[in-house]
Formats: sequence, structure tokens, C-alpha cells
Amino acid sequence: MRIEDLQQQIAFIKEIDKLKYILRKTKLIGSDRAENDAEHSWHLAMMAIVLAEHSNVPIDLLKVMKMVLIHDIVEIDAGDTFIYGSKNHTNTEEELAAAKRIFGMLPEPQAQELVAIWREFEEGHTPEAKFARTMDRLEPLLQNTSNNGGTWREYDVPFQQVYDKKSIMKEGSETIWSYAEQLLNDSVERGILKR
Amino acid sequence: MRIEDLQQQIAFIKEIDKLKYILRKTKLIGSDRAENDAEHSWHLAMMAIVLAEHSNVPIDLLKVMKMVLIHDIVEIDAGDTFIYGSKNHTNTEEELAAAKRIFGMLPEPQAQELVAIWREFEEGHTPEAKFARTMDRLEPLLQNTSNNGGTWREYDVPFQQVYDKKSIMKEGSETIWSYAEQLLNDSVERGILKR
Repeated sequence: MRIEDLQQQIAFIKEIDKLKYILRKTKLIGSDRAENDAEHSWHLAMMAIVLAEHSNVPIDLLKVMKMVLIHDIVEIDAGDTFIYGSKNHTNTEEELAAAKRIFGMLPEPQAQELVAIWREFEEGHTPEAKFARTMDRLEPLLQNTSNNGGTWREYDVPFQQVYDKKSIMKEGSETIWSYAEQLLNDSVERGILKR
Repeated sequence: MRIEDLQQQIAFIKEIDKLKYILRKTKLIGSDRAENDAEHSWHLAMMAIVLAEHSNVPIDLLKVMKMVLIHDIVEIDAGDTFIYGSKNHTNTEEELAAAKRIFGMLPEPQAQELVAIWREFEEGHTPEAKFARTMDRLEPLLQNTSNNGGTWREYDVPFQQVYDKKSIMKEGSETIWSYAEQLLNDSVERGILKR
């Protein structure tokens, strides 16, 4: 171990404290307080722990947890991107530069590992990335259905647009997608998601 | 898979949203905003990922991550306990009841696993528990040294009391403890921690 390695790691640990200030559009359950990215990431990791058994295929849970814990760190530089907004949500140049700057604060092998895991999540092709993205889609669904429609109503997002974004969940877990699909249909019936 | 299992898991996932409201005494880096338990837990998990190589002995990182992510969930019922306060910090009856109630919302095998991991963390005997507790001691140290003494000055906590609480870090990592010890000595020199 080089002492410089530890110093770089500590600098990184301090830098990512900033994730606690990046606010999402979605609100905490039963609340009008916006969730921040650090809270969101913690929640996804907890969801991965308790829901892993529902993955369509066996997954490396440790990798999934790393993915969800780091997936939004680029937003320290690039800011939050609203899934129903006009900006392209996936893998912008700005986010890649952010990944290189922030993970690049770590010793080289760790920086490479975390940039690779972040890319894998963004690309969404592996079983771990698919399951991690399923968690990322499920959490705001639970929030919005608990908040009388939440951001769906606030931003006037129709059923089909929500359905299309959520339906990638089935790539991670058919079981969880079935549950989510039912929640979406119930939301239309309850009048909190418009047709 | 029983459909009841998924429903129980979702109920648990919603319940633990409350961790985002449990405020700690320590403040975010360079800020006077109190950190909440969900943010804190996320940060410890990130620290475990980047610092695992410094553990005195090989550890099961997945278990460490589960530990730090769940270790404060009992505070949803029992509230935050300040480490330099008068209340006994370890394993109170109230926390055990909280662990049983909250983790008990999950299907039985998962409930048993998480209660066991939470107990293991609290007891602090295994390599994973020792390393997880090292993370839990390090984060507020980084916060207080970045905040001109932070809670040490706010609550008038002297060097020796801080030193005694922090010194268990060496059971998890001699390397990280050396770094922490230096930070404590520097803090006295800078006048942000009194002798």
C-alpha cells in the first residue's frame, strides 16, 4: 500500500459528499421533500439486497450494489436528468467527463474499475446492469404511487410514456415487472396517472 | 416465489424510506446541514468499497456493505444516539425491538439474515463487523475535521474522549487508524479539538 493511495481515496470520499445535495424530482414517500441522490442510491442498494431473488437470472449481488451506489455520482458535475424531460437521459458526454474526473481521483486500478461498472450500468446489457436498472425504475414508481401520482401529475406525464420507460424492468425481473405493471394499471384506475 | 414474499418486501422497502428523516448530530462537509441516516449509510458503503484493501485481514465485502447499509435502520424506531452522549450507545433493548419489528416485515429467512447481520455489527467481533465499525468511526472524523471541529466543538468533547472512541478503528484497519490518529493530533494543533 502506498500512503498516496489512501490520501487519494480520502479525497474521493470527501468529494462524493456532494451527492447529498443533488436533488431529484421525485419526493420521499408521503412527503413533498425532494429526495437527494445519496438517499436514492442507499435505497436502491437496500432494494437490491431484498429483491435479488427475483432476478430473471443469477446475478453477482456485490456488483449490482456497487452499480446502484455509484450510478448517480456523475450528477455531482452533470446534475440530475429527469427521466421524462427532453434531455437525452443516457450516457451524455458530460456524464462521461464527470465519471472520468470523479472516479479519476482514486488510484488508477480503482478508477478503472468504477468507470467500467458505471459504463456497464449505463449500457444496460449485462444481467447485473439489467437488475440494477430495474431497481432504479421501481423506486420512483413506489414513491409516485404513494404520493397520489407525484411527478406524473406534477409534470403531466401520461400512462404510455411511463409504461414505456418502466417496461425495461422486465429485462431484470419478470416478477417485479408484473407487480409494477399492476401498479401502473391501478394508478390509472385511481386517477393518479392519466391515460 | 410466493407473491406474499414480494408484497412483504415492498412493504419493507417503503417502511425504510423513514431512515431519510433520522438526523445525525454531524453535519455534511463544509456545511451546517445535519446528515441523515440514509445518506450516512450510503457514504459508509462507498467508503467500504474504496477502502476494503486496508482491512487488517481479508473480508467479505458484500457482508460489510450489507452491515453498513442496514446498521442504522433500527433508528427509525429508536432514534439517533449521539456517540458522545450519556445514553449507552450499544445494543439497547429498544434497538433490538426495532430490529425485530422492521426486519421482521420481510419473509422469515431474510428477516433472520438481516437481524443476524445487524447483531454481528453491534457485537463487533468478526473481521467484517470490525471493518464496518471502522468506516462508521471514520466518516464523522472526516466531517468534523472539515468543519472546524464540528460536533467536537459544538458539544465540547475533549481529545481523550474522541481518541478513546476512535481507537477501535485499529481493530479493522491499522493503516486507516494511523491516518485517523494523525488527523486527531493535527486537530489539536489546529485548535479545533481541545486537549
